[in-house]
Amino acid sequence: MDPYSGRRLFGRPLVVEPQATAVLVIDMLNDFCEREGVLGNPQALALCDNQNRILAAVRDKAGTVVFVNEQHRTNLAPTRAFAQQMTHTYENTWGAEVVEPLTAGEGDLSVIKRRYSGFFQSDLDLVLRDRVVRTVVLLGVLTNICVRATAHDAFFLGYNVVVPEDGVGAMSQMEQLASLYDIATHFGWVCDTSAVCAALTDGQPIENSDVTLGSRLTSV
Amino acid sequence: MDPYSGRRLFGRPLVVEPQATAVLVIDMLNDFCEREGVLGNPQALALCDNQNRILAAVRDKAGTVVFVNEQHRTNLAPTRAFAQQMTHTYENTWGAEVVEPLTAGEGDLSVIKRRYSGFFQSDLDLVLRDRVVRTVVLLGVLTNICVRATAHDAFFLGYNVVVPEDGVGAMSQMEQLASLYDIATHFGWVCDTSAVCAALTDGQPIENSDVTLGSRLTSV
Amino acid sequence: MDPYSGRRLFGRPLVVEPQATAVLVIDMLNDFCEREGVLGNPQALALCDNQNRILAAVRDKAGTVVFVNEQHRTNLAPTRAFAQQMTHTYENTWGAEVVEPLTAGEGDLSVIKRRYSGFFQSDLDLVLRDRVVRTVVLLGVLTNICVRATAHDAFFLGYNVVVPEDGVGAMSQMEQLASLYDIATHFGWVCDTSAVCAALTDGQPIENSDVTLGSRLTSV
Amino acid sequence: MDPYSGRRLFGRPLVVEPQATAVLVIDMLNDFCEREGVLGNPQALALCDNQNRILAAVRDKAGTVVFVNEQHRTNLAPTRAFAQQMTHTYENTWGAEVVEPLTAGEGDLSVIKRRYSGFFQSDLDLVLRDRVVRTVVLLGVLTNICVRATAHDAFFLGYNVVVPEDGVGAMSQMEQLASLYDIATHFGWVCDTSAVCAALTDGQPIENSDVTLGSRLTSV
Repeated sequence: MDPYSGRRLFGRPLVVEPQATAVLVIDMLNDFCEREGVLGNPQALALCDNQNRILAAVRDKAGTVVFVNEQHRTNLAPTRAFAQQMTHTYENTWGAEVVEPLTAGEGDLSVIKRRYSGFFQSDLDLVLRDRVVRTVVLLGVLTNICVRATAHDAFFLGYNVVVPEDGVGAMSQMEQLASLYDIATHFGWVCDTSAVCAALTDGQPIENSDVTLGSRLTSV
Repeated sequence: MDPYSGRRLFGRPLVVEPQATAVLVIDMLNDFCEREGVLGNPQALALCDNQNRILAAVRDKAGTVVFVNEQHRTNLAPTRAFAQQMTHTYENTWGAEVVEPLTAGEGDLSVIKRRYSGFFQSDLDLVLRDRVVRTVVLLGVLTNICVRATAHDAFFLGYNVVVPEDGVGAMSQMEQLASLYDIATHFGWVCDTSAVCAALTDGQPIENSDVTLGSRLTSV
Repeated sequence: MDPYSGRRLFGRPLVVEPQATAVLVIDMLNDFCEREGVLGNPQALALCDNQNRILAAVRDKAGTVVFVNEQHRTNLAPTRAFAQQMTHTYENTWGAEVVEPLTAGEGDLSVIKRRYSGFFQSDLDLVLRDRVVRTVVLLGVLTNICVRATAHDAFFLGYNVVVPEDGVGAMSQMEQLASLYDIATHFGWVCDTSAVCAALTDGQPIENSDVTLGSRLTSV
Repeated sequence: MDPYSGRRLFGRPLVVEPQATAVLVIDMLNDFCEREGVLGNPQALALCDNQNRILAAVRDKAGTVVFVNEQHRTNLAPTRAFAQQMTHTYENTWGAEVVEPLTAGEGDLSVIKRRYSGFFQSDLDLVLRDRVVRTVVLLGVLTNICVRATAHDAFFLGYNVVVPEDGVGAMSQMEQLASLYDIATHFGWVCDTSAVCAALTDGQPIENSDVTLGSRLTSV
């Protein structure tokens, strides 16, 4: 292990208070996850079972659920070159809707994001402050892009960040493990769905799997 | 005049490029402006004629129009005391809609805000950057609360800020003039609807009316 | 009283927890307050006695003190016209130092700001989160510019905002009262130095003086 | 190559305007790079030659140099557990100074950051706006933490992001290549020092090396 991860900023087990916890479901949208989606990667749908288990656990304990959905305007007509290349999850289209297998709860909230991070120029931080949230559990796609970018900002803002590795997906094992390793060593706790459910339901502390991730990475 | 306004940060006449200009229409919503609105102040409707003149001028020159609308979630269930007191412009209600007399253009954009400033945890700055906007013209209500708070952030972010005094309204002459004076001396240019239209249509420079405002204030 | 202030968002008395309270001393700098300062307004020095009383009270109860100081770079060489007009409180000059009559405590923090609001592109919010602060007491100059702009952002971010009117100063009575009225009706609690000290020392609830302010304003 | 990188958002060659370009030197500080530093990784010093070449080129063309330096307060006394673990680059210590081999220029600016990203609660964006910067070149350590976090925010804010792979360093080849791959496919242009110098000096367009990175990664 390198000296940086040896510092183990997130070495202590994390005890989660369910009512101060928000599960953020990131970009589980038709355009990203369904075969017919503009950038569809159907493997993402295989995450829904684990995600639904976590959603049920947090709702049961009066925690918060926020669907964090990328969405773009149809009439922005941007002058800048880059913005012209955003061609997915347009507002009011099927592609911008949450995938069908995910359950929806009555008290669930949703936040629209315009860039990879759920916090960038959105009101996500405000929603979490209004609910007095201290811990966020991140689910969704892609682990190394939108999930990770959201993990960055959540950590900077002082939230405890938890990422169950079987609740997030990337396009390759390399992208998945490399970002999980960075998150576990520098941004928060990486664990699995069962650990999140045990933390929410039984108050089980969450252990960080950073060492394990490191060894899996070197074996690739 | 006091020494601060004597510095006249905004003393130079402002030449506006219409394609780099955005008109921001702030909180012209039924709940704030119609007699039946939760916080209805029908005098605000008298501003619509001037606002429509400016909207027509900026659309005609391929500038940008953004309706900046306060809106609150119905199921936020905030823990914090303050947030529980927000009881207006709920999403998906008549109260959260733009008032009927204001014309809507095909390319108009809208941005939802959650607090007084249109920039706070919204994507307004991103929209303006994508359109390469350098000057914002502020219209709407209340001059001393949401218009002013938006003027603050627009100025901090480096936009030229223009406020036509007959396009914005407050609950009293005192609140109107005091904030216009602060805006003219510290945040941007205060003028009137005709000056904005002449600037957009004929390239007429906008003069700041700060001295005039000062003398009107002392005469109250 | 108008219907908006009648809502009395800040009508309830505020009980302050000293250890979750930060006193923010805004722009009490030589350039703004000393006769020889670039924008010197020596009346500001008359506020120091009250400010020192509040500083002593909050330090005594293990609260937080943050000096929030505007400061500009000497070698920014900005391309933008506006930024070229910032000619005060340059880094490493006498003008950028806190005025001599204010006492300094060992644990006091300081934050540099670049625009009127102490929160804009500074780490003030981060400092307050790290200290788990929930209430901010604002002192300093100018009531209607930097104090008020800081009050805006503090309120948006969810802090309780307290402004003792004899701890803040403006260039005219009009500017002072108009902004205090807006703060009391829309951003927080306006009171006086004695009320802040009693709240910190004895747990006395802070009452908002908005009605009083209103009647003083109409009598001008 | 996966479908996402196949979109090649950054597939077009980037032409850089030197006067609208800022080189950001991230965390090249004694505590991170010198053997005696708290988290010292002396391999980082091997980057200085390339970094100095780029610094010379951008200064020669009247571009902007910003040293973006992590720095922590000695008396913050944070209540939060995490903040208590920040034990490096304290203000006013040798560990917080830029490493000796890097040249300093008269017009160079510096920005203090408190978290991994140079933009988070700092005035970096304001400095870049004041200088009318459109492209940022990122140098420094660690590629997968502070450099990458800064790349995220620069991209979100609309800057063109350029990362020369021989001007940034990580603790392992895996961490280096995985983040460079993500940057090249989702955040900007990855190239090398010679390409940056040619772009600044001769107007040579910068080509993105994302495909190359992909194949190197799969061969690990």
